[in-house]
Amino acid sequence: MAPQLDGYFKQVDTLSDHFIERLRKAVAIPSVSADEERRPDVVRMGEFLADELSALGAQVEKRPLGKQPGKEHLELPPVVIARYGNDKNKRTILVYGHYDVQPAGKEDGWATEPFELTVDDKGRMYGRGSTDDKGPVLGWLNAIEAHQKAGVDFPVNLLMCFEGMEEYGSEGLDDFIKAEADKYFADADAVCISDNYWLGTEKPCLTYGLRGCSYYSVEVSGPGQDLHSGVFGGTAQEPMTDLVRILGSLVDTHGKIQIPGLAELVAPLTDDEKSLYGNIAFEMSNLYESLGSETSIHPDKEKTLMARWRYPSLSVHGIEGAFSQPGAKTVIPAKVIGKFSIRTVPNMEPEDVDRLVFKYVDEQFKNLGSKNTLNCTLQHAGKWWVASPKHWNFSAAAKAVERVWGVQPDLTREGGSIPVTLTFEQATGKNVLLLPMGSSTDAAHSINEKLDKRNYIEGIKLLGAYLHYVAEEPMSN
Amino acid sequence: MAPQLDGYFKQVDTLSDHFIERLRKAVAIPSVSADEERRPDVVRMGEFLADELSALGAQVEKRPLGKQPGKEHLELPPVVIARYGNDKNKRTILVYGHYDVQPAGKEDGWATEPFELTVDDKGRMYGRGSTDDKGPVLGWLNAIEAHQKAGVDFPVNLLMCFEGMEEYGSEGLDDFIKAEADKYFADADAVCISDNYWLGTEKPCLTYGLRGCSYYSVEVSGPGQDLHSGVFGGTAQEPMTDLVRILGSLVDTHGKIQIPGLAELVAPLTDDEKSLYGNIAFEMSNLYESLGSETSIHPDKEKTLMARWRYPSLSVHGIEGAFSQPGAKTVIPAKVIGKFSIRTVPNMEPEDVDRLVFKYVDEQFKNLGSKNTLNCTLQHAGKWWVASPKHWNFSAAAKAVERVWGVQPDLTREGGSIPVTLTFEQATGKNVLLLPMGSSTDAAHSINEKLDKRNYIEGIKLLGAYLHYVAEEPMSN
Ligand SMILES: [Zn+2]
Ligand SMILES: [Zn+2]
Ligand SMILES: [Zn+2]
Ligand SMILES: [Zn+2]
Repeated sequence: MAPQLDGYFKQVDTLSDHFIERLRKAVAIPSVSADEERRPDVVRMGEFLADELSALGAQVEKRPLGKQPGKEHLELPPVVIARYGNDKNKRTILVYGHYDVQPAGKEDGWATEPFELTVDDKGRMYGRGSTDDKGPVLGWLNAIEAHQKAGVDFPVNLLMCFEGMEEYGSEGLDDFIKAEADKYFADADAVCISDNYWLGTEKPCLTYGLRGCSYYSVEVSGPGQDLHSGVFGGTAQEPMTDLVRILGSLVDTHGKIQIPGLAELVAPLTDDEKSLYGNIAFEMSNLYESLGSETSIHPDKEKTLMARWRYPSLSVHGIEGAFSQPGAKTVIPAKVIGKFSIRTVPNMEPEDVDRLVFKYVDEQFKNLGSKNTLNCTLQHAGKWWVASPKHWNFSAAAKAVERVWGVQPDLTREGGSIPVTLTFEQATGKNVLLLPMGSSTDAAHSINEKLDKRNYIEGIKLLGAYLHYVAEEPMSN
Repeated sequence: MAPQLDGYFKQVDTLSDHFIERLRKAVAIPSVSADEERRPDVVRMGEFLADELSALGAQVEKRPLGKQPGKEHLELPPVVIARYGNDKNKRTILVYGHYDVQPAGKEDGWATEPFELTVDDKGRMYGRGSTDDKGPVLGWLNAIEAHQKAGVDFPVNLLMCFEGMEEYGSEGLDDFIKAEADKYFADADAVCISDNYWLGTEKPCLTYGLRGCSYYSVEVSGPGQDLHSGVFGGTAQEPMTDLVRILGSLVDTHGKIQIPGLAELVAPLTDDEKSLYGNIAFEMSNLYESLGSETSIHPDKEKTLMARWRYPSLSVHGIEGAFSQPGAKTVIPAKVIGKFSIRTVPNMEPEDVDRLVFKYVDEQFKNLGSKNTLNCTLQHAGKWWVASPKHWNFSAAAKAVERVWGVQPDLTREGGSIPVTLTFEQATGKNVLLLPMGSSTDAAHSINEKLDKRNYIEGIKLLGAYLHYVAEEPMSN
């Protein structure tokens, strides 16, 4: 029997101005985790959340994470964890979000004050953190409040985990999640994260996969110090000459990675999987718009989505140690460090990728016959993640989307990574669902970040509806 | 008949402390031309020179050069021109030097105060400008004074041209030289510039050639803005991918330029020229010491010197617009600009070099089949210069070296450029000689710049002796 949601939905509409005020208060706290001087604001934002949760009747704890690695004078902001409901007859759903935000300043080119929520006549609510991730985090609180005011029984026990360092590498969180997996998070039946975006602007989606990322440095060094090209050009082997040749050997213009063995690690495309791509609401014009050009690798939608979601890619990001300013400088840099990364997909094990990369780069360098010194290292690796979109956690969410938005959601993956997703899956052993609230035009991490009022209010309905459906969905998979 | 120089030489020795004091006063004026706030010091240095020259009986003028291009509030420092002697029966020699210096600060790592001449127990005189170029400039003044005090007739009419912007591109000087070629400089019979260095530390040299430099930018652009490699990796053609492939196609590890036609522009090596290299005082250990490594292209001295002096070289300097900081950033840069330059030699006409470079880079880019946009441009070009070392100006200088130092000078070229050399040659139509005072260890442009007391005092003798020999050398060539 479909859940009775009309009273809840109506209450959300009634409280919509109140919910926007709550978001306004949250956006007004500049909880920038990357900025040491803003740390008190991050802490204040955690307290705001904890206070709101307490007022709603949740049991709240602020868990310290210790000092920030490399900055021993600086305390990490606490993880705010909370439980709402403790009924053995109900399922328990664990949700995650983050209350810190990216840096923002009017001087970067914002049209409005970044830490003042500004709603325009099209219902676009501008402000840093509006969509990433204060809107979705408050979505859970708003769902609780609307249930209370509508007099609708809350369908699940809700475990919440809100961190304050996501935009700065989630310092300390992995260990915390692992440590609490069989304690605070022990009775979670499924996990839901609302911290990503629709593929477009009109159609909601559920996200079941993320690519991983292995980031490499390749250093070439030779001379004892930078040299003048007039004096030494033609007599010294130049590290830059070697480095651009190595970087130029990694991938071609059409995205084909040149490292032998890498393609063989990729899971073959099944007919079943291939059939998913045709119906996704995405056009090449969407890509061109977000690219700001038509310089795409693939001519069609399916190849483009597969290239983003289920095939690896290699990008060369830049070079450290070379001349990088405007103008002209006749330097021969003594030591240059190329940076490149590979987006990884099933079934590429990070260790296998490292092995193939190091072997290939070494071979390329040996072929140069250079007297310079090469050093290729892994800077960091985050593994890809793929969940089964047929799990009851996803089918419940799909029903909720259909109920709120009147359409079946697209099943999508993302090209980027959200490392905490894999951590929750591995630590709890439970299915993780990514359930986005905002749309592709929200400009998270950019200037003029916004969340559409429609996505916020309907999103609150969706989060609540999801909890109702997931409470009673038959536990298949 | 060899000139009678003993009285002059003795007087130079007698006045050596006085000459060092003159250098001390000059070094104490921080005439940094690159630093707008030091402009009054540059002007003060020009006045110091003019006053000293006037006191020696020279006719001095301070010629204004107008406003500094791009900085219309800033007056360029004047060119100090002077004439000492106006005897129709004597030859007229035009000498050039510069009274401005490179920036310097104790905080850069200087062991002493950069603007206080500090003489150590080995006679090394540390101070910014000591060797580049205040020592040599004062050398001409000291030679005049020593002649006067020794009662030795000055052998030539001396025309002097001392500029104050050499370390910042010699703004305004080219036009001035061209304009004065048939006026102030009209009766010059030969030109001498003392603003470079010995090849080593023990053997003096005369320099008869400089390489030119053609500096290029190669820009590749595509997307409308920087992209995130998670979202766009594998779907967008990346400008960096194209650029590193183009930069990697320009030159190999062994210095071989890959641009067809360029090698054919180079003047063939004659047996006559080849024979010059064997006797040059230079060892591979000198190269390794200055490189700070043994990562040389060539295994022997002759090939190394030819590669520096008479063959072109290509260096990749860096990339503008890519990620250049330490750490990791997963950016796909939207527009990247590679910088490279070619050191040019006889008979490479800069226009021919441009044509071959543009053609090759265009072809390489076309071969990539990229949708991105390429734009390769010349940033600036300075032409190579080679004089005949058999000209009477050089043979006179060689005799002076032998008289002062007791050895025949090496005939050298330089790998770098001194653009004013070519300007003087073209404007006056006269032979130009580079007659260095300092040695290879003087660290011009670096911290701890110095001039050895021996090089200064014997250098003053050399400049005076040169004027005697050049006054009577038979005018061959
Ligand atoms: Zn986020
Ligand atoms: Zn974010
Ligand atoms: Zn100089
Ligand atoms: Zn200089």
